[in-house]
Amino acid sequence: MDPYQLNRMKRRSLAHVDAGGIVPGERITAYGAGKVVASACAEYKEGDVVAGLLGWEDYTLFRPTPGVLMYKLPAGSDDDDLHLKHHLSALGTSGMTAYAGLYEVCKPQRGEKVFVSAASGSIGSLVGQFAKLAGCYVVGCTSSNAKVELLKNQLGFDDAFNYKEEPDMKSALKRYFPDGIDIYFDNIGGKMLDAALVSMNTHGRVALCGAISEYTDASHRAAPDLLEVIYKRIAIRGFVVWDFLTRFNEFTGIIGDWIRQGKVQPIVDVSNGLESVPSALTALYLGLNIGKKLIKLA
Amino acid sequence: MDPYQLNRMKRRSLAHVDAGGIVPGERITAYGAGKVVASACAEYKEGDVVAGLLGWEDYTLFRPTPGVLMYKLPAGSDDDDLHLKHHLSALGTSGMTAYAGLYEVCKPQRGEKVFVSAASGSIGSLVGQFAKLAGCYVVGCTSSNAKVELLKNQLGFDDAFNYKEEPDMKSALKRYFPDGIDIYFDNIGGKMLDAALVSMNTHGRVALCGAISEYTDASHRAAPDLLEVIYKRIAIRGFVVWDFLTRFNEFTGIIGDWIRQGKVQPIVDVSNGLESVPSALTALYLGLNIGKKLIKLA
Repeated sequence: MDPYQLNRMKRRSLAHVDAGGIVPGERITAYGAGKVVASACAEYKEGDVVAGLLGWEDYTLFRPTPGVLMYKLPAGSDDDDLHLKHHLSALGTSGMTAYAGLYEVCKPQRGEKVFVSAASGSIGSLVGQFAKLAGCYVVGCTSSNAKVELLKNQLGFDDAFNYKEEPDMKSALKRYFPDGIDIYFDNIGGKMLDAALVSMNTHGRVALCGAISEYTDASHRAAPDLLEVIYKRIAIRGFVVWDFLTRFNEFTGIIGDWIRQGKVQPIVDVSNGLESVPSALTALYLGLNIGKKLIKLA
Repeated sequence: MDPYQLNRMKRRSLAHVDAGGIVPGERITAYGAGKVVASACAEYKEGDVVAGLLGWEDYTLFRPTPGVLMYKLPAGSDDDDLHLKHHLSALGTSGMTAYAGLYEVCKPQRGEKVFVSAASGSIGSLVGQFAKLAGCYVVGCTSSNAKVELLKNQLGFDDAFNYKEEPDMKSALKRYFPDGIDIYFDNIGGKMLDAALVSMNTHGRVALCGAISEYTDASHRAAPDLLEVIYKRIAIRGFVVWDFLTRFNEFTGIIGDWIRQGKVQPIVDVSNGLESVPSALTALYLGLNIGKKLIKLA
């Protein structure tokens, strides 16, 4: 369950195979995992567990297509519920997105100050943990005090705050980052981006991963002070995980090692049944999920 | 005469030696050229012509300071009015800014489509000519039909338009760039940036050089559609010419060769006398200048 599905419904879509606008009456593709029940392809056998581009449906007909992600999970994955969850979060597109956005787009240096918005979400919760492993100081913002506690006490963030309790985001960020922000991993856009730019240091980097605060209301758009961007030589870069698919094995190999070593905790939030899809999508926009929102169908 | 002086007056200043906020009663530093009338430094002799950080004043007391630009012009420069003008435009900070912003920040490839705003200004007029030398397709926008003709007929732009005659900037850019924009060299910010993002191609690059449309009215701020930036993997980067000072000789050597070979025409617009400073600064904001605005004091 990912926020970008709403953009597809509004026909704001990725120029990427199989992630175009959603057409009423046609299936809605989504990243997921499933068991092969029948196959006419030599590379997939009945009983294999696969992850990749499936759909919001009980059964998916998949035709191998170049550039469309689908891979077999190690044998035994289907017996290990935790393992499957990891493949759909930290070892799936969320982990790839967090890894590529932080390491490839922002290139963190030890000691740099990192700000993550939507920090308890599927991607933010991983970005913060990855940034700690890079030796950075990490502060996350989220939407409830319970999630603030999760970030600080369980995921190792240096600090975290509930943006709903901050009447002035610019002064909040000045308080949480007295030495300024070097990297802002932006999942929400809007006023938070404007405020982050004010606190950013010279040669700061912003990875634009998502802009969830703007998806439901275009009037919430960011109106960044461009002089901050110019005078501080800030680089703002949008990125999309699909550009890094050729490095899938490299990135997930590293993330898998971190999980095994207990250095990274993927957080998942599971709903049951296809009928929970609508409320699960809504929950993303209400900030009700903690970590990666998954729907268990079978 | 550069637009950034207004930002210094508003205490929006570069974190750079000698370009901080302007203090009433103290001299206003500015890039310029002058003749040495007296010197206690071995490296500058009476009669030398120098260019670098001088001031809005008839006589400047200059103390050599690391990181502050000041260099001797070749002997004879003071006898050659044209030559001096070049040192204050294409061979000075404007040329450096255009060169660094286009070649270092945007990295143009042959055949790419380049859009330049404030295209008849000191920097834009050079960016467009440099981009043509890089084999790009170049369209500039400017503020009068006379300047449109200059860009197309004298400076070699592929096309140009008067933004005042375009009621809908987004559709104008779609018309001038049917194949999209690969590089946007932005001197003005505001709604033009928003519109350019809509027409930009995947992996497009925006060099933020200035945001003159926003300096006089913060309500004119850009409100970019971040989904355009994310889904099209656009990189937006602010830059400041001072970061490239160590490459001053390299860049001005290349630009000087282009001028001698007739490949680049620097355009200058000269006012006379210290008393013309206020109206010359205002002229920049009214779009009344063509090319680099200079004040001749002596």
